[in-house]
Amino acid sequence: MQLIDGKALALQIQAELKEEVIRLKDAGKRVPHLVAVLVGDNPASRSYVRNKIRSCERVGFRSTLHHLEEETTEEELMQLIESLNNDPNVDGFMVQLPLPRHIDATKVTLAIRPEKDVDGFHPTNFGRMTQGLPAFHPATPMGIMEMLRRYDISTSGKDCVVLGRSNIVGRPISIMLSAKGDPGNATVTVLHSKSRNIEERCAQADIVIAAIGIPHFVKPNMVKEGAVIIDVGINRIEDPSRKSGYRLTGDVDFEAVADRCSFITPVPGGVGPMTVTALIMNTWKAYSGEVY
Amino acid sequence: MQLIDGKALALQIQAELKEEVIRLKDAGKRVPHLVAVLVGDNPASRSYVRNKIRSCERVGFRSTLHHLEEETTEEELMQLIESLNNDPNVDGFMVQLPLPRHIDATKVTLAIRPEKDVDGFHPTNFGRMTQGLPAFHPATPMGIMEMLRRYDISTSGKDCVVLGRSNIVGRPISIMLSAKGDPGNATVTVLHSKSRNIEERCAQADIVIAAIGIPHFVKPNMVKEGAVIIDVGINRIEDPSRKSGYRLTGDVDFEAVADRCSFITPVPGGVGPMTVTALIMNTWKAYSGEVY
Repeated sequence: MQLIDGKALALQIQAELKEEVIRLKDAGKRVPHLVAVLVGDNPASRSYVRNKIRSCERVGFRSTLHHLEEETTEEELMQLIESLNNDPNVDGFMVQLPLPRHIDATKVTLAIRPEKDVDGFHPTNFGRMTQGLPAFHPATPMGIMEMLRRYDISTSGKDCVVLGRSNIVGRPISIMLSAKGDPGNATVTVLHSKSRNIEERCAQADIVIAAIGIPHFVKPNMVKEGAVIIDVGINRIEDPSRKSGYRLTGDVDFEAVADRCSFITPVPGGVGPMTVTALIMNTWKAYSGEVY
Repeated sequence: MQLIDGKALALQIQAELKEEVIRLKDAGKRVPHLVAVLVGDNPASRSYVRNKIRSCERVGFRSTLHHLEEETTEEELMQLIESLNNDPNVDGFMVQLPLPRHIDATKVTLAIRPEKDVDGFHPTNFGRMTQGLPAFHPATPMGIMEMLRRYDISTSGKDCVVLGRSNIVGRPISIMLSAKGDPGNATVTVLHSKSRNIEERCAQADIVIAAIGIPHFVKPNMVKEGAVIIDVGINRIEDPSRKSGYRLTGDVDFEAVADRCSFITPVPGGVGPMTVTALIMNTWKAYSGEVY
């Protein structure tokens, strides 16, 4: 069994980007600039955004955080988005989800210029990705693809199941893995709440992407000997032994399953750090004009 | 075995739309207007476009055909698209594919305003469809979904294989069938040229969507007793007994397979007429503002 060290890989990719940034600075050029918008005080959101800003700083990008009050109106947020859309010094920006209930998240997503949509959530990017056109890919599945690429895990012709059909992970990763390329060219089945025989389906798969949001859902009987397991879950479970009172755990029963796998990602330290890194990579692409 | 009569169903839906148009006329209102653009003289394309125009007339829509010469430049075509984009009397328009080689089809698709893209090929519509937002759905998979709905064929929880991953059929129908809803909520596997065990996969499926472009690819050993078979193939094969020298045949060996199925679509007269009807339905949606 080989552990896929998402944290180390993320740092390596960030170090590569840092060199690019140094080259820019040496040439007297502007560096990429990512703006993050956070509305309200959701603790998990604060921590995600902090991580993104910190990663930007690590690679030498310019970063700006707009931290707005919970009471911010939709109109105020839309005005900020409009100004970011039109600011030539902003290469890309993202609005952290979830938003407070009085703000329409779809409306917000649609208001972001596709050319600056480094989260890859705008339908135009999503459609371009699906159709195989240049696009900003959503960060989590993009991070997984990069992980597979860097670990030389071939997916071509492999049987793959994706647990979950969310717009953020399940749906896009199923499309990417099934598209032409390697990683890619897999035979992908999307499993969800209405699917039957989920355990048997997983047990037959060469690759399992678990993005279902249920702690320890994937048990040893669902893992074929030698399978590749990618755990996208980030679930908080109670743990009185921790100061915080909780710990993070994935959708996979890692302890019980790891021995059976050829490759497996841990939680934390697997997909999570790669997600943040994918956002940074997208910001680089926005800056360098690789997509639009 | 029940035959899914796509032709009869298409005529029925068109008759329903015709009543809506009569109501509009009685109220002294403008009727929907579809514009079709055809470049060059590809015989199959001419016949497809003719069919679309004829269906428009049948339902009482206004229709216009712009038939441009093979030598039309990309710039000339783009100018026409721009004028259609801006013409308030045009509800929707479509540019028949394939285009002559000297014209970039992607560029053309991207130039069509998503609000008038009744073919549903623009990435913005594709992304919206994938994300479950209101959108123009591509005509062929939309026609299939309508067929399943009208024949009361439940797909929820069913195992479905899609043969083919094209942007026009395989990919979008896999997304639609796997999305929430019924039809929908199926467990979908996309099979393609790199997939292994294609025959076994098909033989286990409750529903097979064949969109692979190989005549008679689906044989009896690939069909489970009681399966639903949707044949998207439109292949010309030689037939000296016909005046034209050819006949149309699907991706399914209909004669050999039909007895095993609970439902099956014929070729011709199955998915084809529903595709044209879906385009008409999209034009109605464009007119009535149901999407944007």
